[in-house]
Amino acid sequence: MNQNYFQDHRAFGFIDWSLRGIGQVVFQNNPLCGLVILAALFYNSWIYGLICLLGVVVSTATAIVLKADSGLIRNGLYGFNGALVGLALVAFTSENFRTGAVPSFYLAVYIVFAAAMTTMVFAALANLLGPYRVAALTMPFVLVGWLFLFAVLKFDNIEAGPLAKPVSPDQYADGVAYVLPTWYMGIGNAIGQIFFQDNWVSGYLIIIGIAIHSRIAAAMAVIGAALAALVAAAFGGPEGAIRDGLFGYNAALTALALGGFFLVLTWQSFAYTLFGVVVTTWLWASVAIFLEPIGMPVLTSTFVIVTWLMLIGAYAFKALEPVPPAEATTPEDNRRRYLAADRSASRSERKIA
Amino acid sequence: MNQNYFQDHRAFGFIDWSLRGIGQVVFQNNPLCGLVILAALFYNSWIYGLICLLGVVVSTATAIVLKADSGLIRNGLYGFNGALVGLALVAFTSENFRTGAVPSFYLAVYIVFAAAMTTMVFAALANLLGPYRVAALTMPFVLVGWLFLFAVLKFDNIEAGPLAKPVSPDQYADGVAYVLPTWYMGIGNAIGQIFFQDNWVSGYLIIIGIAIHSRIAAAMAVIGAALAALVAAAFGGPEGAIRDGLFGYNAALTALALGGFFLVLTWQSFAYTLFGVVVTTWLWASVAIFLEPIGMPVLTSTFVIVTWLMLIGAYAFKALEPVPPAEATTPEDNRRRYLAADRSASRSERKIA
Amino acid sequence: MNQNYFQDHRAFGFIDWSLRGIGQVVFQNNPLCGLVILAALFYNSWIYGLICLLGVVVSTATAIVLKADSGLIRNGLYGFNGALVGLALVAFTSENFRTGAVPSFYLAVYIVFAAAMTTMVFAALANLLGPYRVAALTMPFVLVGWLFLFAVLKFDNIEAGPLAKPVSPDQYADGVAYVLPTWYMGIGNAIGQIFFQDNWVSGYLIIIGIAIHSRIAAAMAVIGAALAALVAAAFGGPEGAIRDGLFGYNAALTALALGGFFLVLTWQSFAYTLFGVVVTTWLWASVAIFLEPIGMPVLTSTFVIVTWLMLIGAYAFKALEPVPPAEATTPEDNRRRYLAADRSASRSERKIA
Repeated sequence: MNQNYFQDHRAFGFIDWSLRGIGQVVFQNNPLCGLVILAALFYNSWIYGLICLLGVVVSTATAIVLKADSGLIRNGLYGFNGALVGLALVAFTSENFRTGAVPSFYLAVYIVFAAAMTTMVFAALANLLGPYRVAALTMPFVLVGWLFLFAVLKFDNIEAGPLAKPVSPDQYADGVAYVLPTWYMGIGNAIGQIFFQDNWVSGYLIIIGIAIHSRIAAAMAVIGAALAALVAAAFGGPEGAIRDGLFGYNAALTALALGGFFLVLTWQSFAYTLFGVVVTTWLWASVAIFLEPIGMPVLTSTFVIVTWLMLIGAYAFKALEPVPPAEATTPEDNRRRYLAADRSASRSERKIA
Repeated sequence: MNQNYFQDHRAFGFIDWSLRGIGQVVFQNNPLCGLVILAALFYNSWIYGLICLLGVVVSTATAIVLKADSGLIRNGLYGFNGALVGLALVAFTSENFRTGAVPSFYLAVYIVFAAAMTTMVFAALANLLGPYRVAALTMPFVLVGWLFLFAVLKFDNIEAGPLAKPVSPDQYADGVAYVLPTWYMGIGNAIGQIFFQDNWVSGYLIIIGIAIHSRIAAAMAVIGAALAALVAAAFGGPEGAIRDGLFGYNAALTALALGGFFLVLTWQSFAYTLFGVVVTTWLWASVAIFLEPIGMPVLTSTFVIVTWLMLIGAYAFKALEPVPPAEATTPEDNRRRYLAADRSASRSERKIA
Repeated sequence: MNQNYFQDHRAFGFIDWSLRGIGQVVFQNNPLCGLVILAALFYNSWIYGLICLLGVVVSTATAIVLKADSGLIRNGLYGFNGALVGLALVAFTSENFRTGAVPSFYLAVYIVFAAAMTTMVFAALANLLGPYRVAALTMPFVLVGWLFLFAVLKFDNIEAGPLAKPVSPDQYADGVAYVLPTWYMGIGNAIGQIFFQDNWVSGYLIIIGIAIHSRIAAAMAVIGAALAALVAAAFGGPEGAIRDGLFGYNAALTALALGGFFLVLTWQSFAYTLFGVVVTTWLWASVAIFLEPIGMPVLTSTFVIVTWLMLIGAYAFKALEPVPPAEATTPEDNRRRYLAADRSASRSERKIA
C-alpha cells in the first residue's frame, strides 16, 4: 500500500499527520512507522501511549489553527516536539517513572499549553536557523520541557513527587560489573528512552518501526546506542546508567541525524558520525552532572548541541556532503540522489571536455 | 500641544529623548508619558527617580558620543535599558528594596559603566536580530543587569547587603488566603515592578502615563497583570508573590508587546497574546526557581524569552500580522495602517476583477 | 628572513601553520611569535609545552582531513582553540596546576577528541557569525572546554583530583596589602594565564613573542593587564587573585582584540578599548562567582562575551571603524590601510568638487 495514501485524505489526513509526527521524533516521515512506535509505547504503558497522542494532536492542531505552512504540518514536523514534551511532563512528575501516572486536571491543562508552545518555538527556531540550513531538531521540546518542568515542581495544584528517575550517572552505584544484559538491555533501553520508555522491549519495537521506513536509519540507531554503551564502559561509567540506556539515547539520535539523514552517507561521514556519537556520550554525562544540582534532566539537549555544531560546521568541510533539512528524506534516498547528481555532473564535465 | 514639539529642539532635545527613553520601557515613544512615569517613581522614592534619570541620561549620552543612529536616539531607544539597569543595581544592593539607598561613589561609577554598556549591547542585539525583524526588547538590561549584579555582591568597596527582596515564589509563605487587596494591589504592583517600584499607587500612575499615548496599550498592561494574578491563583501560587506583583510584571510586558504593538490587534492575535501571558506567568516561576540558588532575580528575562519566541514564530503563521520594529508605533496606529492597506489591496483586487 | 617563508613549504608547512596556531591565541599570525610562546611554555613546564603542541597539531590536522578552507588552516586559525583546550584539560585535572601532570592514556584520548571537536565548533561559529562580521575568538575553546571538563571529573578511568587552582576571587584571603610584586607579577601572570601558565616570567616572554609581530599589540596586552589590576585593586579585589593574574587575562585579550586588531586604532577606539577592559575585569569576577558552585573555571568566556557585544555593536557606531575578521592583520597595518583609504577618498572628493 502506498504509505502516502492518507496524507491528503479529507477525513483521515489529520491522523496521518499525527502519526508522522510520532515518527519524526526519530526522523521517519512515515505514518506506519509512527503507528508501530505508538504501539511500542502502549506495550509499555497505556498512559504514555495516550499522552503521546495528546501531545502530538495538540501541537499539530495549534499549527493548523495558526495557519502554519501546510507542507510542514502534513509531514508531521509540527507534531514531534509536542509528543515529547507531553511524555516528559508526565514522566518527571509521576511517582513511577516506568508507567507514568494519569495527570491531574491542572497538569493536563499545563501539558496542553506546553505542547502548543512547542509549535511556536518550532516556528521560531526554524526561522532563526533557516539561513544556516540546519533543522530545529528536538530543541523546541528541550527548551519548553526545561522551562515548564521547573514551575511544575512548585505550583501547589500540580502534585509532583520528587523526581523518581536518576538523571545523572552520579546517582548510580559504582563498581557493578558489566554483564550480558548490560548490553542488550542497554541498547533497547537507549532507544526506548528517546520516548521516555524504560522498557527495552519497547526499544526494539521502535527499531522495527524505524526499519519499516529506512534500514540504514534503524542500523544507525543501534550503532549509536551500542557505541555509546561501549565508550561509557571503557571510561568506567556506572553499569546501571548504561543498562538504563541513559548514555545512549542522545547518542542514538546523533547517529540517526548525522548517519545519512543530514549528511550523505559516505565513509567520511560515517567516521564523522562515529566521532559525534562518542562526543555525545561523554557530553551527556557532562550536561547531566551540570544540571544535577538543580534537579533538571538532560532531555535530548546533548544530541541537539553536538548535532547542530557538527552540521553547521559541516558546510565548511569539503570532505562532507550536507543535506539541507528541506531535502532530507531517508539515508537511502539522500545517497541515491547524491550519486545521481554526481554522475550527471561528471557526464556533463566529460561532454565539456 | 504637539507631543513631538521638543524632539528637534536644540536645547531641550536631549531632555525629550531621555523622557521618551523612560516611556520606551513600556513601549511608549512619548515624552509626556515618560514624565508621568518619572513622577510615579518620585512619588514612591526620590532616590529611584534620580537613579532612573541617571541611567537614561548616561546610556543616551553614550549613544550620542559613539555617533549611533540619530533616529533611534531621538525615539528614546538607547535610553530605556540604561534606566532599568540603574534601577536594578540600586534596588538589589539596598537594604530597603522599597525606597532604595543612595549609592556609594564606587557603586555610582559602576552604575555609569553598566548604563553605558547597555548602549553597546542594544546596538549588538539590534544588529543580531535585524534579519529576524524583532526588537532587542529589554534584553540589554537583563544581560548587563545579571552580569553586573554578580560582581557587585563581592567587591569590597561596594557595600551590598544580602538581597532584601524575595526573588522567587518559594520565599513566600504558603496557604495565605487571597483577599480583595491581593487583586487590586497585585495589579498595581505588577506594573510598578516593571520599574522595581514596590508601590501599587505608582503602578496605577504608570498606567495613566501609558494611557496618554495609547488606551489599548494601557488596557493590555492591566489585562496582562490581571490574567497573571488569576492564573497564579488558580495554580496555587503564594498570595504574597501575587500581591507583590511578581507573577505579573513580565506578563504585563508580554501583553504590551504582543497585544497590538508588534502584532496587529485582531481576535486571533488577542488570543495569541492571552496564551503568551499565561505562559509568561508560569515561566516567571520557573526562571525564578532556576535562579534562586545563585541568588539572581529574574528581571524581565521571561518576558523577553516568551515574546522573542512568539514573535519570531509569528512570521510563520498566516493567522497573525507581525509589525516589524521599525514600523511599530501604537496598537491603534498599527491597526489603522493595516486596515487601510487591506482595504486598498481589496479595492485593487476588485479593479483587476 | 621573510616570516612567510615556510607557509607554502611542502615539508615544513604543517609546522609553520601549527606555530601560527599558537600565535593566534593572542591574534598573531606569525610562526616566530608562536615559537617564542611555545618556548615560554617549555620554560615553565615541558608537560604544558608538549600538550600545547598536541592540541594545535590535532585540531589543525582534523581541519586538513575534513578539507576545510586552506587559507584558514595556513593562517593557524584552526589550531589555537585546540591548543587551549588541551592545556585546560591538563591544567584542571592535575594535582599541581603550575606544572601540570602527564595525562593518562584515557585522558590523552579525551584530549585528542576535544581538540578535534574545536575544529568543528570553530567552523560552526565562523558560519554562524559570518553575517555579523565578527570572529569566533576563543569561544570554541570555552564551549568545548566547559563541556569536556565536567565529564572528566566523573569518569572512573580519568583520574582527576579536586580542582587545585582557585577559580574565583572568593577563594582568596581578604585584607592582604597590595605590594610591588602584586603589580609586576600580576601583569606577567595575567599574560601567562591566557595559556594557563602560573609563571610571570613566562608571561613576559609571551609579551616579547607578541612584540615580534606587533609592538602595538604587545603594548595593548600590557595595558589591558595593568588596567585590570588597577581596577580590581580600586574596588578592593583580593591581592592573591590580582597577583595570580586572574583579573587580568581576559582583560588583556579584550585589549588585544579591540585595541587596533578588530577596530582601527584611534583615540575613540582606544577609549572604547579601555572601557571594555574595565568591564571585562568586573565581569570576570561575576562569571567566576556564578560558576563557582559548579566548580567550573571562567576560561576566556568574559573576554569573548564583552568583545563580541562591543564589536557587533561597533558596526552601529560611526565614531568607530571596525575591521572585518578577514581583513584584520596587525594594529599597525589596519591603521595604515585605513589612513590610505581615507586619504584617497578625500582626494577623490576634492576632484569631484
